[in-house]
Amino acid sequence: MAYLNENYLKLRAGYLFPEIARRVKAFCDANPEAAKRLIRCGIGDVTEPLPEAVRGAMHKAVDEMGTREQFRGYGPEQGYEFLRQAIAENDYRAHGIEVSSDEVFVSDGSKCDCGNILDILGDRNVIAVMDPVYPVYVDTNVMAGHTGEANESGAYGGLLYLPCSEANGFVADVPAERADVVYLCFPNNPTGSVATRAQLEAWVAYALKHQALLLFDAAYEAYISEPGIPHSIYEIPGARECAIEFRSFSKNGGFTGTRCAFTVVPKTLMARTASGEMHPLHPLWNRRMSTKFNGVPYIVQRGAEALYSIEGKSQVAALISHYMGNAKILREAAVAANWPVWGGVNAPYLWVRTPSGLTSWQMFDRMLQEANVVITPGSGFGSAGEGYFRISAFNSRANVEEVARRMAALTK
Amino acid sequence: MAYLNENYLKLRAGYLFPEIARRVKAFCDANPEAAKRLIRCGIGDVTEPLPEAVRGAMHKAVDEMGTREQFRGYGPEQGYEFLRQAIAENDYRAHGIEVSSDEVFVSDGSKCDCGNILDILGDRNVIAVMDPVYPVYVDTNVMAGHTGEANESGAYGGLLYLPCSEANGFVADVPAERADVVYLCFPNNPTGSVATRAQLEAWVAYALKHQALLLFDAAYEAYISEPGIPHSIYEIPGARECAIEFRSFSKNGGFTGTRCAFTVVPKTLMARTASGEMHPLHPLWNRRMSTKFNGVPYIVQRGAEALYSIEGKSQVAALISHYMGNAKILREAAVAANWPVWGGVNAPYLWVRTPSGLTSWQMFDRMLQEANVVITPGSGFGSAGEGYFRISAFNSRANVEEVARRMAALTK
Repeated sequence: MAYLNENYLKLRAGYLFPEIARRVKAFCDANPEAAKRLIRCGIGDVTEPLPEAVRGAMHKAVDEMGTREQFRGYGPEQGYEFLRQAIAENDYRAHGIEVSSDEVFVSDGSKCDCGNILDILGDRNVIAVMDPVYPVYVDTNVMAGHTGEANESGAYGGLLYLPCSEANGFVADVPAERADVVYLCFPNNPTGSVATRAQLEAWVAYALKHQALLLFDAAYEAYISEPGIPHSIYEIPGARECAIEFRSFSKNGGFTGTRCAFTVVPKTLMARTASGEMHPLHPLWNRRMSTKFNGVPYIVQRGAEALYSIEGKSQVAALISHYMGNAKILREAAVAANWPVWGGVNAPYLWVRTPSGLTSWQMFDRMLQEANVVITPGSGFGSAGEGYFRISAFNSRANVEEVARRMAALTK
Repeated sequence: MAYLNENYLKLRAGYLFPEIARRVKAFCDANPEAAKRLIRCGIGDVTEPLPEAVRGAMHKAVDEMGTREQFRGYGPEQGYEFLRQAIAENDYRAHGIEVSSDEVFVSDGSKCDCGNILDILGDRNVIAVMDPVYPVYVDTNVMAGHTGEANESGAYGGLLYLPCSEANGFVADVPAERADVVYLCFPNNPTGSVATRAQLEAWVAYALKHQALLLFDAAYEAYISEPGIPHSIYEIPGARECAIEFRSFSKNGGFTGTRCAFTVVPKTLMARTASGEMHPLHPLWNRRMSTKFNGVPYIVQRGAEALYSIEGKSQVAALISHYMGNAKILREAAVAANWPVWGGVNAPYLWVRTPSGLTSWQMFDRMLQEANVVITPGSGFGSAGEGYFRISAFNSRANVEEVARRMAALTK
């Protein structure tokens, strides 16, 4: 008789965003008039058109697929060299960071890679996550059997939660305990916080001391606006010996529905067996990708490559500028409403303390029912997120201005 | 200190196709003149242009992504309803098979799904595979820790190998032993064999008796030409209680480089916990896909949908007819060469006994060096494949005719 993976039964309720979708649908079904003025600032999904440079490249690639001579079948599972080189050159070497093209693995999403990376790691690691946390880090560890059961606040036994709060500016401090694998996400989802160079240096020093692995999620790197904030963990000396970096085209190139991302696994990165033998992780990830993945569509990789053209870079800059203009409007509205707010400066997310001691889900329901605005309840990201909510700046300018007006009306 | 997944260290050599690529590259580097006349019949990769209906749909989708109104961000992780419905209707209900659209999960590849399906299964299952076998079934189980070490013939301890031979027409007999999970692949890769209705009925009866799970890989379903051969495991009564089916657009629509496939998980399919509780697998796979996957590119899903249009169906039929015409030529060449041959009638693969008692890799080297034709050594698919090789019919007509001539020359 077939046995199932019982770890799945430990997962609490739905994954956060499906749960939000369920509540929004119930509200809209019951209130068809209010549904018409609904504005979604919940899920962090881009709204603006795919850049022209990308569309041009994809049209060309579709045409290539129509001729025997230029047709492309199976591509390299790791990604086409044209894209791996564009990434290594533009995102790293142009900034003085040492990353070779064969350390870049092109994939269909950072969410996927953040989950799949566990395939090559062992079962006895002590796993640390920031709290609040992007739920995928936690849920994939639950599924892999790296945790115990959840308690009533949703925290799983066996995980080391690193509390983030107003006191530490929502950047986790290096803990006293040893961890073997640490998830870091900067600019942070959900809080919008960024780590300074000194803070990342402390994390690299911690990792090197404990021979720990940092899983560095830089999906929102393009939103960093302040000088001096590192864009890549590899800006920190020693990171090539302790860190994997995840990046995505979702939020810079608007690829959430087009699907392309990449993960950097330096060849200098080692991990150990139970008996203490050291092995590089690069061949393991390479083997994982060639056995369980078949590469990103050729057409999509050509689209991603176009983001690095002169036109592409300029179109990406315009997108970022649009969304960060939104963030500024939302920040000012929160300040005017007397709602303490973080983020929105180096990230497309604002992290807001709920007024009047409301819980996160109470605030979610209030925003939905009274303002017809969808936000994300902070407690959905972990117990340290209780009492906060996230507003996404991914929207049209008109919608964001309307949200700002409704926030003002709500607090009158 | 970070621990790695030691199961990866059990994996033997490279995955088969990278190993072939390595040998071919070494030969071509050493023999630049011969390299010019090299014909690849190794990896089963399509060669003909992407159907016009697909390209038209993809161009349209690329244009949609250029407007705010029609732009698509994150889609449903399970696939867009337009594609799930087209699949359920055309591949199943039109043939009298009960499959609902929400039992269809659109993915980026059957190889991926065949590996990822292990995420939702437990660690104590007895796993059975046919021998010869598509290597991904075995390697992903090795990675997941479901096997012991490999022996000198490449067989892993802990797996139940079901021998396929000339005696059983390369269709595994139902074993005397109990298995919990059984991989079946028909039309078969690599042997090109198909299972009759009676043979599949025996497998479903076996699965229901043992409450086992059948993982039915039907990626080559479109190549079945003989009447009466089941195209889907769900043609067999009872299969909705014991089988998951994998299908792909790679080999019918020419999507190997465009990436789209799907997996059917019936809601009536159950598996057990260690303590004997029964749970449906559908919500587990749904949770897996929504947590570790973000859907197939919208543009690609529109391309896949177009395969079900009248033009698309006709263009797919032309592709299949082309490749099966190739298979016929290769079969006749093998017969003329006095090489015993199987497959090539309901599948794009021919399975050929090596002449003169050569091993599979000896035959690979001989075909490479003397005929400058790349084939796939049978032993790469498991020890029961020793003494055979696979020829792929995926090629241009001119190349296939030339391969037939070289086979004749080789045996003169």
